[in-house]
Amino acid sequence: MQTGKINVQTENIFPIIKKFLYSDHEIFLRELISNAVDATQKLRALSSMGNIKEDLGDLTIEVILDKEKGTLTVRDNGIGMTAEEVDKYINQIAFSGAEEFIKKYKGKSEADAAQLIGHFGLGFYSSFMVSSKVEIFTKTYKKGPGSKAVKWECDGSPEYTLTETEKAGRGTDIVLHIADDSKEFLEESRILGLLKKYCKFLPVPIRFGNEKTWEKVEGEKDEKGNDKYNEIEKPRFINNTNPAWKRKPVELTDEDYNSFYHELYPSTFEEPLFNIHLNVDYPFNLTGILYFPKVKRNIEVQKEKIQLYSNQVFVTDSVEGIVPDFLTLMHGVLDSPDIPLNVSRSYLQSDANVKKISNHIMKKVADKLEDIFKNNREEFEKKWDDIRVFIEYGIITEPKFYERAEKFCLFKNTSGKYFTFEEYKNHISAAQTDKDKKLVYLYTSDADEQHGFIDAATGRGYDVLMMDGPLDNHFINTLEQKFENSSFVRVDADVIDKLIKKEEALPSKLNEEEKNKLKPVFEDVAGKEQYTVVFESMSETEMPVQITRPEFMRRMKDMSMLGGASYMGNFPDSFNLVVNSNHPLIAKMNDEKDENSRKALARQLTDLAKLAQNLLKGEELTGFIKRSVEIIK
Amino acid sequence: MQTGKINVQTENIFPIIKKFLYSDHEIFLRELISNAVDATQKLRALSSMGNIKEDLGDLTIEVILDKEKGTLTVRDNGIGMTAEEVDKYINQIAFSGAEEFIKKYKGKSEADAAQLIGHFGLGFYSSFMVSSKVEIFTKTYKKGPGSKAVKWECDGSPEYTLTETEKAGRGTDIVLHIADDSKEFLEESRILGLLKKYCKFLPVPIRFGNEKTWEKVEGEKDEKGNDKYNEIEKPRFINNTNPAWKRKPVELTDEDYNSFYHELYPSTFEEPLFNIHLNVDYPFNLTGILYFPKVKRNIEVQKEKIQLYSNQVFVTDSVEGIVPDFLTLMHGVLDSPDIPLNVSRSYLQSDANVKKISNHIMKKVADKLEDIFKNNREEFEKKWDDIRVFIEYGIITEPKFYERAEKFCLFKNTSGKYFTFEEYKNHISAAQTDKDKKLVYLYTSDADEQHGFIDAATGRGYDVLMMDGPLDNHFINTLEQKFENSSFVRVDADVIDKLIKKEEALPSKLNEEEKNKLKPVFEDVAGKEQYTVVFESMSETEMPVQITRPEFMRRMKDMSMLGGASYMGNFPDSFNLVVNSNHPLIAKMNDEKDENSRKALARQLTDLAKLAQNLLKGEELTGFIKRSVEIIK
Repeated sequence: MQTGKINVQTENIFPIIKKFLYSDHEIFLRELISNAVDATQKLRALSSMGNIKEDLGDLTIEVILDKEKGTLTVRDNGIGMTAEEVDKYINQIAFSGAEEFIKKYKGKSEADAAQLIGHFGLGFYSSFMVSSKVEIFTKTYKKGPGSKAVKWECDGSPEYTLTETEKAGRGTDIVLHIADDSKEFLEESRILGLLKKYCKFLPVPIRFGNEKTWEKVEGEKDEKGNDKYNEIEKPRFINNTNPAWKRKPVELTDEDYNSFYHELYPSTFEEPLFNIHLNVDYPFNLTGILYFPKVKRNIEVQKEKIQLYSNQVFVTDSVEGIVPDFLTLMHGVLDSPDIPLNVSRSYLQSDANVKKISNHIMKKVADKLEDIFKNNREEFEKKWDDIRVFIEYGIITEPKFYERAEKFCLFKNTSGKYFTFEEYKNHISAAQTDKDKKLVYLYTSDADEQHGFIDAATGRGYDVLMMDGPLDNHFINTLEQKFENSSFVRVDADVIDKLIKKEEALPSKLNEEEKNKLKPVFEDVAGKEQYTVVFESMSETEMPVQITRPEFMRRMKDMSMLGGASYMGNFPDSFNLVVNSNHPLIAKMNDEKDENSRKALARQLTDLAKLAQNLLKGEELTGFIKRSVEIIK
Repeated sequence: MQTGKINVQTENIFPIIKKFLYSDHEIFLRELISNAVDATQKLRALSSMGNIKEDLGDLTIEVILDKEKGTLTVRDNGIGMTAEEVDKYINQIAFSGAEEFIKKYKGKSEADAAQLIGHFGLGFYSSFMVSSKVEIFTKTYKKGPGSKAVKWECDGSPEYTLTETEKAGRGTDIVLHIADDSKEFLEESRILGLLKKYCKFLPVPIRFGNEKTWEKVEGEKDEKGNDKYNEIEKPRFINNTNPAWKRKPVELTDEDYNSFYHELYPSTFEEPLFNIHLNVDYPFNLTGILYFPKVKRNIEVQKEKIQLYSNQVFVTDSVEGIVPDFLTLMHGVLDSPDIPLNVSRSYLQSDANVKKISNHIMKKVADKLEDIFKNNREEFEKKWDDIRVFIEYGIITEPKFYERAEKFCLFKNTSGKYFTFEEYKNHISAAQTDKDKKLVYLYTSDADEQHGFIDAATGRGYDVLMMDGPLDNHFINTLEQKFENSSFVRVDADVIDKLIKKEEALPSKLNEEEKNKLKPVFEDVAGKEQYTVVFESMSETEMPVQITRPEFMRRMKDMSMLGGASYMGNFPDSFNLVVNSNHPLIAKMNDEKDENSRKALARQLTDLAKLAQNLLKGEELTGFIKRSVEIIK
């Protein structure tokens, strides 16, 4: 038997890094700046623990682009490295420097140190994805022997050289000689774009300049003993080191939250409706601010997205799987080192921490909504039309959210009044309980198109709910499963007398024979295939002819349209043509002997009924208009 | 100065692989089966070159799931490995076995060998993403000393053991002991799903079974000297080893292409319209079949996508950047080893090969369309309504495609007749050239809603184009830039006499004073803010009142709706209310002394004009219907 260790041939490590480390080359800049931030944070930690006595000076990280020389430099004033540390952290791949650092300071301030875990292992090597040569100039914060500045250099071969060098200040310069196939990273706009994307909220100030920004003053030194430079152009400061989500809610005003919103989404003009500040330490670490935006009618074109950070480093704006589905329409930031990165969505969804985070966010959203509802109902109602799509979506998809939302979810009726579920039940139960003791909720999907029917219903003392949102088909189905002994009926599902079935019935002025005589006239005019002609004994003040859409068949049709399956696509429209047998014009039609006049009257009344249901189109409409002009003449 | 080599500590290689190799753990199965296919293809290559004399036997790759033992095995009957080769290919990471293989056989059949480049380097290690232990049982095809079967075993520590073992047949078994956090890969449905996703068209047969599929017959051997098994359950064959795109077009009938379409998209019932078989060797390698599907009105819900393969291994169904944007709505497969994988979209778009491939696909699509148009115009017209959205999209976005498409792109008029650009120009130039010698193309965006206007235009001898597609706003803008001395005007942009401005004009029966008396009545009824009241002297057979939408203002409005920018959202509708000063009812209104009657008449005529433009809604419509019933009474 042979035993041994799997051997990695270092000649091949750079191709591996290039191919597999990150699919997106631009990531190198995020990694280098993350390292610079770590080095600076470590210095701050050492100082606050008393290990460094002197003043730390300006800790700004500098990103310097020199297009002429073809270099991009990332410079920090952090802890720096000794030659020994370069050997350990740079010459040995896959060693986690930060872990070792934490072990060393374990006794002192574990919580502080734990925040410093960075990417000190592999991140640096991503610079070879875009560079033909990489140089490191570094000088440790430590004093005494072995603390001389060193220069490391490697062209990715993987031979390196390490030499002593002169460097005035403490810290590390990483100089990338950008490779020919990566010239895009010598463009000022490209680098600025990346800095804005990944570094906007890093906790150490970052400054971006190019070779024209500073001019070296030969032979002079500044007060720290560094080479002296005069500023020619203003360098740009990139980041807000103390973003709102890292601050305490008590320190922040509504204006602060709103202005942070615009910092996150500079191209958005609208104000958010309200926000939720998240701050959890245990059992997972999560900070962030979520905003309820005004939701556009067309949900799919939502452009702004929740941004995910890990210790203030931007990671992604794709939070599916981390945030409950119905809350992905929200805006804002989440920052958590406990969300695993670079893993598949299916893995994310099974991760226990992620599940806890998702549930926590849902609970916090419900808390906030309940809080506003209880303490400021007026404000809640004002915002309702903008937030209802979130809440309906949550109710449809998350049973746990329904349990919370049933207390504050609102119904809006056609007069613009708002009711809770409980309030609305009490409001309608007297008038809208049918003869089988079932409570009938009337609704409209389009108050304009169904105006005539709404008019009739409210005239009868009924109340009609606005159900014109994009999710209301599903929402109604969900509520019917939750509400006992209740049903939802669209206001045009039947004529007013039969919409909510009561005991009373009016006598009919037409007998069966007369009805049988008139029926084929209407069938002929309207088309027997699409319209079922029925007679109802209604009040003579109701319309002579109406077209209704029976609830069940209409829902089947709506569902088939939503589903989009091709074999359901042709699900037919189903209409009743209801003739009011007590209307004077129907009586007149019954008396009329001339067949053509009778038919003309039936056609005009049917066309008017079609108009009321938005069904008179094209040639039929043109014909109706011409006939109407003739009638007026 | 110190020099040295960057050292990779092997203790850390497995965490790196787990974290960075692939973000999606399921990829391991694709990699293992790709290796098995490579091993089999190499054997075939050696055989065809005469290096192996004996019959190769059954080369089926077997995937065996044993839920009880917690293992998943991938078994091939390929070339196998000697102990020495295991040392070289498995114990040394990042060595490209396939490259070496190609060098060796360079003289013999370079083209054949070049197709064999696989992932023999790192792919195997991806098995550690899901396994607590991996075993390899392998026996080389070679004869003689050093060709004994060996067993390799590693728990990812990275210590391995390598021992001699007994193995009857040639080839390699990879046995994964699935780790506790990856139990999903012991589910039959999960593995079957992955095989169907990645392996459907691999060139070696693949069979999937579980521990119940075969029963070992103790002590007996089959004719090849392997352990004998009886089949208990039918194993499932996973793949079509010779998919249509790899075959020659001359061998394939229309039925073959259609049945391959359904093989690609098993849940789709519809037939594709036609297909394009791609086959390029130089300067890049590309095979594939693209299909023109029937495009749904709602482009965004398109579910089926073009699938991208690399040597018959499924890679992705996201081809943005590889295929011109307007062709991403097509269906089918593309297979090219020349498309770089695992790179960012922005990188893809700048890759020279990818640009060439994209242009080639565009050219082939244009060739096919032109071919059908030239040789079978009838069929082309039949399919036009389904393909026009592709062609319009292409014309709008790709100037090169316009140059090709202007010969076969069709216009359809309201009578359902089709014309090329050239034919249509000749068809309308006599009647539709205005007094400034400009050619006016009339169109409708909705033949139903604009029926009255179409009626008037065709009555006047004009032709009206159907422009009711989702892209027609942009399409018209593009054509206006391409066509000289022409303009497009929607059929309701003005009254029929002024739609195409000619020299003639009828005298008016109303004088200015009378017009000034009637104007405020209409302004009052229609609303001065929204409607501009104008008088025109038309024939008395035209409508008494019409509402028109001036072309320029309507386009501005349409554009603002498409853009969705909030400050443009409220761009007002702009309507003209055109009164026909020669209509008898207007004369009657002029004579009418009673102000209320005059107003009632104006209201009814205005409502009829609104109806013709789909502008009478809600309360206004309900009022109109009630009034109309009264008028009939």
